[in-house]
Amino acid sequence: MATTQLDTVPEPKYWHLKTVLTDALDSEFSVGEILPNERELAARFGVARATLRQALEQLELEGRLQRRRGVGTTVAPPRMGVAVGPAQHTWPGEGDDAWQPVGCSDATPPAAVAALLETEPDALVHTVRRSRVTHGQPVAAELLYVPAGSVPDLSAIDVPAGPARARSVLRELQRLELTGQDRAVELGSARADDAKQLDRLPGAPVLVLTTRYFVGARTAAVAVATYRADTCRLTFGDSGGIEITHQGEGRQRRAS
Amino acid sequence: MATTQLDTVPEPKYWHLKTVLTDALDSEFSVGEILPNERELAARFGVARATLRQALEQLELEGRLQRRRGVGTTVAPPRMGVAVGPAQHTWPGEGDDAWQPVGCSDATPPAAVAALLETEPDALVHTVRRSRVTHGQPVAAELLYVPAGSVPDLSAIDVPAGPARARSVLRELQRLELTGQDRAVELGSARADDAKQLDRLPGAPVLVLTTRYFVGARTAAVAVATYRADTCRLTFGDSGGIEITHQGEGRQRRAS
Repeated sequence: MATTQLDTVPEPKYWHLKTVLTDALDSEFSVGEILPNERELAARFGVARATLRQALEQLELEGRLQRRRGVGTTVAPPRMGVAVGPAQHTWPGEGDDAWQPVGCSDATPPAAVAALLETEPDALVHTVRRSRVTHGQPVAAELLYVPAGSVPDLSAIDVPAGPARARSVLRELQRLELTGQDRAVELGSARADDAKQLDRLPGAPVLVLTTRYFVGARTAAVAVATYRADTCRLTFGDSGGIEITHQGEGRQRRAS
Repeated sequence: MATTQLDTVPEPKYWHLKTVLTDALDSEFSVGEILPNERELAARFGVARATLRQALEQLELEGRLQRRRGVGTTVAPPRMGVAVGPAQHTWPGEGDDAWQPVGCSDATPPAAVAALLETEPDALVHTVRRSRVTHGQPVAAELLYVPAGSVPDLSAIDVPAGPARARSVLRELQRLELTGQDRAVELGSARADDAKQLDRLPGAPVLVLTTRYFVGARTAAVAVATYRADTCRLTFGDSGGIEITHQGEGRQRRAS
């Protein structure tokens, strides 16, 4: 078995098991296949159930396994490379935007967003909900917060809510001159509403991408997008969005 | 309590508790403070221990709490914004690079990296280990994989290992004309050696940033950097690296 010569630190038992399981996943199992149950696996690899469970959790974190209620543990498909942050600055909804507007309402944003927008903590802002679907799978849910001050002409439009209202907000936003944007990625947990949209349980690990849109020195809008951490790899491509391959898939591609 | 009007989905019990706890963290506790034990907290909020534990796990995932063995649960400092991916293409070690070379050895890269580099699965490549420290805290560990073909003149240099060897590899790399780079972020778990370097337990959630460096159409090097997910927010700044503030901190800054 190939190991790097850098691994001079002793590894815990479940870690070694994880390596063995990874090799087994690569060689014996195909995507979507259901693994034997924990008792059988523990017996096969000669480890305690607790050790096995730790290794399975690691593999789930790394996107190799999916554990679904009522189904069991299945081999996960390779994570999808999901392009975020185009090289050019564009407003949401401009160009070949991968998002679909779902709805729009007036809501008080989370404190962190209110701070970025420099609105009062209890002030209502236009809140556009959007959805991103790739290969028929929901991959991300987004809330785009737009203060009334950024789209002053919007109130004249008589569209109360829903996707039509969302499109009106985006259209007004696109009339402004976008001077820059700023992005950050961090680990988070799925809120109940996002979880439902993403077909996950509330609290599932997600990658949270926060984007600030600047008009001059002012933050005109903030988008908080929640990506499924189990199925997505966020790509920031400067060279045409070349796909970084998954470990298992990489091996197969090498053969061709 | 302010809630958004979008929250029409019923939320599980621990989720509501999480919101209440978040408010308590903002108003009653300061960074580094140790929370009361689980029994006291469960009694105070009138919930079962299991519900409390779920809420605490969520807050840990979101970076609000840290649970340390032998210490208990403490209020986490705001996540640090760690700038990754400069606007200009630069080689590792060029310009105001935040990384320190730790060592260098020849090792077989993971299969996914070998696939990107188009090296044979068992081929040894120069493997530079680097460390990134911010405000005295280790925030990331990196392995930079450089095939011998990318630095053909290196073999003539008589530096066997360690940071000096690492610097030699970087210097040779910097002589090539970098034509592009490509980045991806995904969730992962800390390997034992990275965990040690990051002062975490093996298997802790990390953000894995994979960078490909192109010379012409060829991948000349691949860096796999492992960032602490509990303390870091990765920022991709196009507008001068303006800091996106943490929720709690954001509130304080508003007041100023």
